Amino acid sequence: MMPPEIAKLGHVALVTPSLEDSVWFFRDVIGLREVEREGDTVFLRGLRDWEHHTLSLTEGDRAALDHVGWRTRSAEDVDAFADRLTEEGIDVTRLEPGEETGQGEAVRFRIPAGHQFELYFDTDKPEPTDERRSRLKNRVYNLADASPVIPRRIDHVNVHGPDVTATHEWLREVLGFRMNEYALDDEGDRRGGWMSNNSLVHTLAYGTEKGANEATFHHVAFYLDSFGDLMNAADVAREHGVDVEGGPGKHGITQANFLYITDPATGIRVELYNGGYQIFDPDWEAIEWDAEEAAEGLTWFGNPPNQETIPVE
Amino acid sequence: MMPPEIAKLGHVALVTPSLEDSVWFFRDVIGLREVEREGDTVFLRGLRDWEHHTLSLTEGDRAALDHVGWRTRSAEDVDAFADRLTEEGIDVTRLEPGEETGQGEAVRFRIPAGHQFELYFDTDKPEPTDERRSRLKNRVYNLADASPVIPRRIDHVNVHGPDVTATHEWLREVLGFRMNEYALDDEGDRRGGWMSNNSLVHTLAYGTEKGANEATFHHVAFYLDSFGDLMNAADVAREHGVDVEGGPGKHGITQANFLYITDPATGIRVELYNGGYQIFDPDWEAIEWDAEEAAEGLTWFGNPPNQETIPVE
Amino acid sequence: MMPPEIAKLGHVALVTPSLEDSVWFFRDVIGLREVEREGDTVFLRGLRDWEHHTLSLTEGDRAALDHVGWRTRSAEDVDAFADRLTEEGIDVTRLEPGEETGQGEAVRFRIPAGHQFELYFDTDKPEPTDERRSRLKNRVYNLADASPVIPRRIDHVNVHGPDVTATHEWLREVLGFRMNEYALDDEGDRRGGWMSNNSLVHTLAYGTEKGANEATFHHVAFYLDSFGDLMNAADVAREHGVDVEGGPGKHGITQANFLYITDPATGIRVELYNGGYQIFDPDWEAIEWDAEEAAEGLTWFGNPPNQETIPVE
Amino acid sequence: MMPPEIAKLGHVALVTPSLEDSVWFFRDVIGLREVEREGDTVFLRGLRDWEHHTLSLTEGDRAALDHVGWRTRSAEDVDAFADRLTEEGIDVTRLEPGEETGQGEAVRFRIPAGHQFELYFDTDKPEPTDERRSRLKNRVYNLADASPVIPRRIDHVNVHGPDVTATHEWLREVLGFRMNEYALDDEGDRRGGWMSNNSLVHTLAYGTEKGANEATFHHVAFYLDSFGDLMNAADVAREHGVDVEGGPGKHGITQANFLYITDPATGIRVELYNGGYQIFDPDWEAIEWDAEEAAEGLTWFGNPPNQETIPVE
Repeated sequence: MMPPEIAKLGHVALVTPSLEDSVWFFRDVIGLREVEREGDTVFLRGLRDWEHHTLSLTEGDRAALDHVGWRTRSAEDVDAFADRLTEEGIDVTRLEPGEETGQGEAVRFRIPAGHQFELYFDTDKPEPTDERRSRLKNRVYNLADASPVIPRRIDHVNVHGPDVTATHEWLREVLGFRMNEYALDDEGDRRGGWMSNNSLVHTLAYGTEKGANEATFHHVAFYLDSFGDLMNAADVAREHGVDVEGGPGKHGITQANFLYITDPATGIRVELYNGGYQIFDPDWEAIEWDAEEAAEGLTWFGNPPNQETIPVE
Repeated sequence: MMPPEIAKLGHVALVTPSLEDSVWFFRDVIGLREVEREGDTVFLRGLRDWEHHTLSLTEGDRAALDHVGWRTRSAEDVDAFADRLTEEGIDVTRLEPGEETGQGEAVRFRIPAGHQFELYFDTDKPEPTDERRSRLKNRVYNLADASPVIPRRIDHVNVHGPDVTATHEWLREVLGFRMNEYALDDEGDRRGGWMSNNSLVHTLAYGTEKGANEATFHHVAFYLDSFGDLMNAADVAREHGVDVEGGPGKHGITQANFLYITDPATGIRVELYNGGYQIFDPDWEAIEWDAEEAAEGLTWFGNPPNQETIPVE
Repeated sequence: MMPPEIAKLGHVALVTPSLEDSVWFFRDVIGLREVEREGDTVFLRGLRDWEHHTLSLTEGDRAALDHVGWRTRSAEDVDAFADRLTEEGIDVTRLEPGEETGQGEAVRFRIPAGHQFELYFDTDKPEPTDERRSRLKNRVYNLADASPVIPRRIDHVNVHGPDVTATHEWLREVLGFRMNEYALDDEGDRRGGWMSNNSLVHTLAYGTEKGANEATFHHVAFYLDSFGDLMNAADVAREHGVDVEGGPGKHGITQANFLYITDPATGIRVELYNGGYQIFDPDWEAIEWDAEEAAEGLTWFGNPPNQETIPVE
Repeated sequence: MMPPEIAKLGHVALVTPSLEDSVWFFRDVIGLREVEREGDTVFLRGLRDWEHHTLSLTEGDRAALDHVGWRTRSAEDVDAFADRLTEEGIDVTRLEPGEETGQGEAVRFRIPAGHQFELYFDTDKPEPTDERRSRLKNRVYNLADASPVIPRRIDHVNVHGPDVTATHEWLREVLGFRMNEYALDDEGDRRGGWMSNNSLVHTLAYGTEKGANEATFHHVAFYLDSFGDLMNAADVAREHGVDVEGGPGKHGITQANFLYITDPATGIRVELYNGGYQIFDPDWEAIEWDAEEAAEGLTWFGNPPNQETIPVE
């Protein structure tokens, strides 16, 4: 039997102390589409996301990461992963279909570093109203209805936490993440790694400052189709009076054109991401950037975001 | 005394047999801002136009060009041009302030080829509501309020008519247009010229098929800041079910990146224009493109618009 | 045991009646890097291709497709595919390591429609000279050394041939291609399909005019990182006196921004490709475009390439 | 008689302590074309500059600004300006034709703030070799011959010095510069102004930190046609191991997309400039940005360059 596999990053579930502010930020400034509200949770997605939601915002005491949802390759893989995790001594919680709106059976658990992950396969497919539907059958939402900011789809999530090397190894062994690039600190220890389950150069970045022992969240990234859209996004954010925290610029590692904007009400950070590269070669060897190389690898040009993070729930 | 001068293309006044369709086209598809309605006329402008309007649409029997408005360098230049035109035997009609909404004193007349021109200096400056105003003091409208189509300002007008060389000469002598580039036909006669009153490579294109003796209108152009915006404009037009008649592409002559879209209800054509070049050298010598050179000069790459035109009123 | 899988499109091997002209076209106009010459064959690749070559040009009697090379997920998959193909009654030819320059063991065969395919896993990794190597460790060639045309990597190949539906089915069953989008003709029969082995919306397009019974080659596509690069590519081609046959434009199907340019000496066509979209959802259902929908799906805007093809060797 | 007028910024003449390093920087990194060498001076220009040179580099003891050349509207204007300057008590030095390579009669003088300006009309027009000439008759150099950095033309010069308000006034009164935008400091005094002689929002920026009493040079700017080219320019600079000092980003004032890169050997700074806006309205009122507004007006987004300058010769 084939080992279970994660197919893609599904969604990021965030907690916000100011739900309406955050909805305004992600919908009106960043341009995501509001899909549905259920209780104190609002579900959103990009213009070309083919899932029920790729971001959720739930009212809570403080800004925090609730969980990161990963879509498996098949329905069976959810169970197979659950078994595997249980063998590893991880507590697994099962969710019934619909317990998370728009989603089928799922399991939730904490990785050893402390972040809550979720695995699921079934998701309601987008069915926008005729008015909002794109005339292109392979695109979800109508572009005519967009602002100049056009977030197409979720791209990756970046979390911080302790035990960088051990966590990378655990993610590889248990969840099957492939390491594509990693950076070392002055002492030759890993300070971060860019891992993936598909051709994207990363779906998950995991790293931290040395000695940090708290699991935190740095940003979730949405993909834009062009650098022009990214420039327009920066311009629109400023029109809204929202600062552009980092970028425009280009990472060397991942080769991404980036823009970082932070929800002013909550400190939740989003990266608008364009370009990057993809890995189709099955024998890709992880690229190591030593401390000196990493300095320019992290920021090839442009100003980087700051390193403040928000906690995990 | 200095001779009177035209400072810029001010606006194009069009007649449409289907006012609401044309307003939908220019406002919702092309992205111009609706400024004001007065009687059966709707006034619009781009996001960075500093005049009351740069396009007007008036209900009428058929699609037609009513007039092209040119802003002079000073208020005195309006009178000076009127005197000059009268000397040339041209009938000049005077308009009182406000006779054309948002505009001061003006004169209207027909150039020998048959198109009605208007000269004016005073214009109401844009005062958008706080909600629509840009946070940038040097931009009129808020970009956050735009669709992915972002027409910044009027650029030029393209008309067809008889007597190409003679008309070019008249425009130069009487109105001061400088010839920047012109194209010849197989017999060595002029088939078109790109003329300007300022640093833009053209504010007015005048040409035609040989032997044509009707004054007509081919298109009005609005400037977009980037080629990415032009691609988004094409995409948005298609989402609206509107065809892209010409482009994306690049003219050799003028070096413009172009997109041509025609109001499906009326046949009124608009060019979305990006790039081009500017002439700051006062001793610029008009560039001649012979018939063979003009073939690629007209369309450096991409598919050109068709040559159908609409009449002048 | 897991079924063998193709990981990616590896290379396209073309025959040209005018080797130096074609090298000039692909290297100087299109911007590929020349890797090596061996006998009457020249090997090239893009600036971020991680294989020995992604295009080869061999001197021959006429322009033709020799073979399309596909890289498997593992070395074992080459043998597994060979067995599978033999079971299907397909003649399989084995190549020793190095028999194709820079490549390990491989097998070649003709798909039932007549095109020669090649499967291999081992390939020499790029080792550019220090002078040409990028300072970015995850990019092969130095960008400072490029022209304004910057082809990053091979993207897909487009071939024509008989028996569209049957061929699609064979490619799926035997080689594991997933169908992502397909178009129907007026009678409801398939006229083309866009298939893939990875997250790219297509690595192989297979279709044809109804009743055609010849296996031919339409184009090979290379990916550019931005639409601006694509515009520069068109401009550079024209500076070289080379026509832009199709585009700039956008396909609805695949959502690609496209530019088609044909080697004037040989008729070999290349697509410069930007954008597109990716499929990460494992339960993607192939999108069907009926004849009417396909009309705008094939060309969302911009002028398409013509349908002339070159034969297979 | 019409008062003399400056038509455009002509060129910036710089002194470098390391001529070959600076030539490498401006030619190989920034992409200007080398036109000619005469003695210890190298002349360069952009791909669409219509003058003999728009930048010169002369070997000298230290990095410094020698002079800024301005092209007048007519040959007579050079003399008329000379008379005017003499009346103002300014020492004027006359240059014979050819004394500055490629240039006709000229006058040089120091503005009261201390920078040397030059006025001239006649200039040799570009006559590139057939190999380098563009196939477009309205473009100078062939784009196929360019790197991904494509500097089209000189745009503006930015100098620092004492007496900001008085200098602005002098430039207006004596040389005819129009003030388009200016910024105030906390005490309500001018800290900088953006002035122009044509439709460009600025051809000259003059400002400084309060109390500064030294005339210095901050940067010369070249225009790129697209933001994509600007991103490629940043990437290419980094491939050369050259830092990107400021940007990519966007100024609010001038609305320019910017990139600042400094010659590592000499500290001479260049801005690569895209976008901006143009002023065609003859009654433009200078836009005032108070200290608070100026903060975001100066940098709408992206990281700004530092404020180090080099002296004037």
